[in-house]
Amino acid sequence: MKLTHVDERGVKMVEVGHKPDVIRKAIAKGRIRLRAETVRLIREGKVEKGNVLAAAQIAAILAVKKTPELIPLCHPIPLTGIDVTFEFGEDYIEVTCEVRAHYKTGVEMEALTGVTVALLTIWDMVKAVEKDEHGQYPFTRIENIRVVEKMKGE
Amino acid sequence: MKLTHVDERGVKMVEVGHKPDVIRKAIAKGRIRLRAETVRLIREGKVEKGNVLAAAQIAAILAVKKTPELIPLCHPIPLTGIDVTFEFGEDYIEVTCEVRAHYKTGVEMEALTGVTVALLTIWDMVKAVEKDEHGQYPFTRIENIRVVEKMKGE
Amino acid sequence: MKLTHVDERGVKMVEVGHKPDVIRKAIAKGRIRLRAETVRLIREGKVEKGNVLAAAQIAAILAVKKTPELIPLCHPIPLTGIDVTFEFGEDYIEVTCEVRAHYKTGVEMEALTGVTVALLTIWDMVKAVEKDEHGQYPFTRIENIRVVEKMKGE
Amino acid sequence: MKLTHVDERGVKMVEVGHKPDVIRKAIAKGRIRLRAETVRLIREGKVEKGNVLAAAQIAAILAVKKTPELIPLCHPIPLTGIDVTFEFGEDYIEVTCEVRAHYKTGVEMEALTGVTVALLTIWDMVKAVEKDEHGQYPFTRIENIRVVEKMKGE
Amino acid sequence: MKLTHVDERGVKMVEVGHKPDVIRKAIAKGRIRLRAETVRLIREGKVEKGNVLAAAQIAAILAVKKTPELIPLCHPIPLTGIDVTFEFGEDYIEVTCEVRAHYKTGVEMEALTGVTVALLTIWDMVKAVEKDEHGQYPFTRIENIRVVEKMKGE
Amino acid sequence: MKLTHVDERGVKMVEVGHKPDVIRKAIAKGRIRLRAETVRLIREGKVEKGNVLAAAQIAAILAVKKTPELIPLCHPIPLTGIDVTFEFGEDYIEVTCEVRAHYKTGVEMEALTGVTVALLTIWDMVKAVEKDEHGQYPFTRIENIRVVEKMKGE
Repeated sequence: MKLTHVDERGVKMVEVGHKPDVIRKAIAKGRIRLRAETVRLIREGKVEKGNVLAAAQIAAILAVKKTPELIPLCHPIPLTGIDVTFEFGEDYIEVTCEVRAHYKTGVEMEALTGVTVALLTIWDMVKAVEKDEHGQYPFTRIENIRVVEKMKGE
Repeated sequence: MKLTHVDERGVKMVEVGHKPDVIRKAIAKGRIRLRAETVRLIREGKVEKGNVLAAAQIAAILAVKKTPELIPLCHPIPLTGIDVTFEFGEDYIEVTCEVRAHYKTGVEMEALTGVTVALLTIWDMVKAVEKDEHGQYPFTRIENIRVVEKMKGE
Repeated sequence: MKLTHVDERGVKMVEVGHKPDVIRKAIAKGRIRLRAETVRLIREGKVEKGNVLAAAQIAAILAVKKTPELIPLCHPIPLTGIDVTFEFGEDYIEVTCEVRAHYKTGVEMEALTGVTVALLTIWDMVKAVEKDEHGQYPFTRIENIRVVEKMKGE
Repeated sequence: MKLTHVDERGVKMVEVGHKPDVIRKAIAKGRIRLRAETVRLIREGKVEKGNVLAAAQIAAILAVKKTPELIPLCHPIPLTGIDVTFEFGEDYIEVTCEVRAHYKTGVEMEALTGVTVALLTIWDMVKAVEKDEHGQYPFTRIENIRVVEKMKGE
Repeated sequence: MKLTHVDERGVKMVEVGHKPDVIRKAIAKGRIRLRAETVRLIREGKVEKGNVLAAAQIAAILAVKKTPELIPLCHPIPLTGIDVTFEFGEDYIEVTCEVRAHYKTGVEMEALTGVTVALLTIWDMVKAVEKDEHGQYPFTRIENIRVVEKMKGE
Repeated sequence: MKLTHVDERGVKMVEVGHKPDVIRKAIAKGRIRLRAETVRLIREGKVEKGNVLAAAQIAAILAVKKTPELIPLCHPIPLTGIDVTFEFGEDYIEVTCEVRAHYKTGVEMEALTGVTVALLTIWDMVKAVEKDEHGQYPFTRIENIRVVEKMKGE
């Protein structure tokens, strides 16, 4: 068992030129745990919900496209589609990001990058209501970021 | 209790011009759960450890500086220092990112962005050894991303 | 009367180090002319309006922060606040972008960049309904991009 | 008639994986209205003309390549060629941007982005001569940005 | 003999759409001349060597991917692999960068960009030991950046 | 003597918050060696000279502003001015880049980044005339990149 990106000469962007172009799909999920009041504020707000989720979606879509600039050894990939969706729990919001391409290498890092940037964008927008009186975040957590499905070929 | 970034006109980058420039520090932490063999491979490898951690550190430092480009409503901040460190558990690596500035607004989003990009970079480098025979990731998880300290003034 | 950015040696980013830090504000406006049906579709749509405008706002805020990367001779400026708002006419949407900073040089290029990227983002989202049967855009136009106010000092 | 980028789940980067790779071309135009003296200054200046137009061309070419980073729902597209040209009127400069690719989706947003960034770059370079004694821009306007031709297949 | 990127209308990103996709490889090299003590410090340091070289490798790999954003007339190219390696002389470090793609145009600018950013990153990390007592760099030089091999087809 | 950016915990962006804001200037130079015919072609061409040099200047100015994104451990610095100039020899072009700021840390990496990207941009524009019949570059070299002056305080 070996790490493919590292050898005695350091790190590299591994060669994928010999791999065929096939359909690739990856779905990642992750969760931000918030105060129940914060979730309610977003969920029930007429404007809040649309705007917080739209900001998170757009930030995620842009971040997916920036993956090879953020994760040093990722290949630039011509992506064909990106979806970002949300589910609400009592004290959390769960983000799902699905990324698709027709290329030589998988897109799970892209889906994971989309999920994390969506979650960070939600955090940024609820800072004022999540902080305690000392400016700390006793409740806010990003949790359970994972790849739930990775697909190759049709 | 209100969200400060959202109102009936949508989202905005909130005005901070009236706030004084003070010393700001934020420390965030997060964890990637890996197979015990993967952790061992990194930890005991002569080259692997240095290279995986260096890649994660550098990716994190660059990502911290890109925060206002990734998180739409963050302000551009002239940062004065960034540290990224690691601790190993049996089946996880924990990343700590500390960011400092002398400015009008806090740097916790920067520290959180650094932590998540460090964790994603580790994931990317261990893909080959974390995937199962179906190309899925039954063990790999990013967990417990949080702000452990936020400081303002001296 | 002379162009300040160009001389016999070519172009330069002009020195502003001797200028004092003062409060700066600029407001720019511009308009996208659309089919009346498209405007109605956005305006009356429950989800459409929020999402199209949120996408345009967020794209504009991110673009304002990227101004020195897009307009070659612009200085990097530590911005303190950005607002993007919309007005609807029968066959157009008007975008207003206000940018504020406390710095040595004005922010009108930032406000203009925000307006144009908001307008382009709206265009991108209504492509399917604006195109005619030959895939052309007989109606869509971006018009009247201008600086409506530029302020310096208090 | 429906917006393709927006639905009840918010915005998405629409799937184009099923579309064939064909030759794509789009030509966009737009105009900056300036004081007649400013146009004369650029047009007749030995160095001014070359440098202002070269700056605008290069800014436009770089911006075309950045389109998917600026317009959130645009796909990354492997572009094959970009041309940016200028025509002078008595009190305006008109920019034309032609973009070509061999891909699954059209390039009109790329051509429009090139035109607007060229026009903004010209504005930035003539600020000193366009402003009035109060630092305002009574004449300067960006106008009539449009797609003049969109072509698909050969 | 003519420059292909420049004509009476200024500069352009030349059309490559008619060229076939073939395997492309380019290898560039370059050297940073340093004080012998600095080279020794890096070479013999337990942590220094790994970290300086890892930082330079990662910066180079990221810069290779940014080439079309840095060099205005370069095409965006879907790269398939990148290697960055080092050799030590008594008073210099030599960097080699190999870039591969399967595309319509060559990758020598990408390889050259990787080499130069690796060399600049090394310079940045040894500033404290290379500067003399007046804060100047009497010894440090970047030298002999060249394309040592360019390959097209198999 | 120690490297300041590296320690047993890896690399970091060193803290500069305690340093005073002072005037900073750095001048870097470097040279691209070309065939004498290529230099003549640029130098004597009516359009060639202006356009090649304008492209190199603008690429350099944009790259200076991107330094903290390219060189991982560089601080973001609010730059106040950038000049890029050229001198012609019989078989070379020499680039000088001067960068100024009022900040806590020096700008020599910015000046060096400007010089190297100007030189790479020239190389890119003369590829067609520098290559031999096998597509190789027997003459082209980037040489002698150095900091010629670094100034701090007034």
